[in-house]
Amino acid sequence: MRLAVIAGDGIGPEVVTEGLKVLREVAPDVEPTHYDLGAMRWQRTGELLPDTVLDELRGHDAILLGAIGDPSVPPGILERGLLLRLRFELDHHVNLRPAKLFDGVTGPLLDPGPIDMLCVREGTEGPYVGNGGVLRKDTPQEIATEVSLNTAFGVERVVRYAFERAVARPRKHLTLIHKTNVLTHAGGLWSRVVEEVSAEFPEVTVAYQHVDAASMFFITDPARYDVIVTDNLFGDIVTDIAAAVTGGIGLAASGNLDASGTNPSMFEPVHGSAPDIAGQGIADPTATVLSVGLLLEHLGRTEQARKVNAAVAFDLSTRAPQGPVRTTDVGDRLAALASG
Amino acid sequence: MRLAVIAGDGIGPEVVTEGLKVLREVAPDVEPTHYDLGAMRWQRTGELLPDTVLDELRGHDAILLGAIGDPSVPPGILERGLLLRLRFELDHHVNLRPAKLFDGVTGPLLDPGPIDMLCVREGTEGPYVGNGGVLRKDTPQEIATEVSLNTAFGVERVVRYAFERAVARPRKHLTLIHKTNVLTHAGGLWSRVVEEVSAEFPEVTVAYQHVDAASMFFITDPARYDVIVTDNLFGDIVTDIAAAVTGGIGLAASGNLDASGTNPSMFEPVHGSAPDIAGQGIADPTATVLSVGLLLEHLGRTEQARKVNAAVAFDLSTRAPQGPVRTTDVGDRLAALASG
Ligand SMILES: CC(C)[C@H](C(=O)O)[C@@H](O)C(=O)O
Ligand SMILES: CC(C)[C@H](C(=O)O)[C@@H](O)C(=O)O
Repeated sequence: MRLAVIAGDGIGPEVVTEGLKVLREVAPDVEPTHYDLGAMRWQRTGELLPDTVLDELRGHDAILLGAIGDPSVPPGILERGLLLRLRFELDHHVNLRPAKLFDGVTGPLLDPGPIDMLCVREGTEGPYVGNGGVLRKDTPQEIATEVSLNTAFGVERVVRYAFERAVARPRKHLTLIHKTNVLTHAGGLWSRVVEEVSAEFPEVTVAYQHVDAASMFFITDPARYDVIVTDNLFGDIVTDIAAAVTGGIGLAASGNLDASGTNPSMFEPVHGSAPDIAGQGIADPTATVLSVGLLLEHLGRTEQARKVNAAVAFDLSTRAPQGPVRTTDVGDRLAALASG
Repeated sequence: MRLAVIAGDGIGPEVVTEGLKVLREVAPDVEPTHYDLGAMRWQRTGELLPDTVLDELRGHDAILLGAIGDPSVPPGILERGLLLRLRFELDHHVNLRPAKLFDGVTGPLLDPGPIDMLCVREGTEGPYVGNGGVLRKDTPQEIATEVSLNTAFGVERVVRYAFERAVARPRKHLTLIHKTNVLTHAGGLWSRVVEEVSAEFPEVTVAYQHVDAASMFFITDPARYDVIVTDNLFGDIVTDIAAAVTGGIGLAASGNLDASGTNPSMFEPVHGSAPDIAGQGIADPTATVLSVGLLLEHLGRTEQARKVNAAVAFDLSTRAPQGPVRTTDVGDRLAALASG
């Protein structure tokens, strides 16, 4: 397995080290190549993602990413120039974010019920395309626009992926989240595509909710959800809510998939670089390890993925509740459990 | 007080009746004029908001709205043609949404802390402007766009309003919520305006959070917030999260303000028409009564507003927890408390 590793900034290198530790335990054939990308490289060289590096990345089976971001870099530079550029160049149209309340985890909710949802967030369209601009900048007459672009092609492929995942799950339920009553153009496209593709999946029941209502139900009744499909920006928000109610971003994994298999998919914890705790060895690497689980699953290494996920589930069920975390301890425990 | 009343659809008329009951108790000079607008009128006549009606509305001191919406009407028609048209035509640039966890209310959180925030949502710009379109509709080549429009003029007035509210509160703290790392054009404008206006309010401390992070903190640490200022769409989402963690939309009030005073402001519960429980007399009118409190406050009737809010606070602190609600009982109790 040729794995490109982008450890990145802040706690990125710390959690990636543990992720690789666990990965090596179940997949001894892994051949990691490390790429130095992120805030430090940009500060040093002005480079974000050189084309030659992008080409090299394409030659791998998958990418593992830690975290990108540093307060010394103005907002948008690393996100647009590196993280989002990777997602767009590698056509990561499926941003996959499971949210499960593991046994032993006390989330923030009084009565969460059994949460086990799979959010399928679109990854290459919507308000993330970088389309828009500024007129009369820095004057009292400034106008700034952001354009959300949505195509039938782009919506259809992610909706189809979501249906495929839904039909393979016990509950076979899919919820579209959008804001069709206000964003009538994009909302109309999403609704129509969901309706059309649903005809091919008669076993899947389909629900629709506005993003504001869904943001509420994620808190008051998250157990009602099975698979969710939504646009890039709504997905960014609701998957963080889903992470919050299942114990926080310390546990939230994600995969950026090119579901066609043309480009390598990229796996990353949902959390950021957390500069405030970087270098202290107290970041929870569990989200990275769960991202490694998604990576193995994506590569068809089902049994290896099962081992990783089972290790995490067991570890969480026996961890001291809300206790402090030592990054390497968690990695050591998970590696031992996964190998066993 | 010349009050225009739009009871609307579903539970709208039920909750508005109770809101007026309480209002009459503290403000006997209220002169309500009822306007028949909403799903039924549209079904009957095809009319949403005739210009003559809009003109008449302008002649009032304020508007009280129940709820608009019915499943028989395609999404977008009533929202864009009536509710949003009112907000835009009457220049309701401040969408004010307090979220307070009242004593006696058990929200969904294990350990919420003392939540008392004031969300100031922009009301006339952003992705709500209806700008955008569809190319090659209903074909595999369909493209749908939504354009978010943001002006220095529009952002500045709502940001200034938020600072004015923040400086008058004990904590004097303001949080801007946006997504500056992805929506760099609009985000840059919002950031710059907040920075500029903050120079005029040196007592106010300012924080910034991305909307995804904020959506998480609203759940894990909502007590950290004081005043929030954000764009129309982000405000739609985060105010529903705020409502969820403070006991649900049954308690969430809102005001759509033309802070310049040129047009009448409009007050409405955040909840919708809830067709599933309409006509049964079980809708909680508390959000409408709290909206009446905002209305009185806006009209400078501070003592009347205080009475209404105190009635709600007392009633909630003595209500049977999670007990069923009878709409008229709640209204009767609140009217008696407010008059006493
Ligand atoms: C860092 C940012 C660009 C990114 C996003 O908005 O997609 C992050 O929030 C995420 O969800 O992965
Ligand atoms: C009904 C809808 C148009 C409206 C909005 O999105 O503003 C509602 O959700 C609200 O928050 O008042």
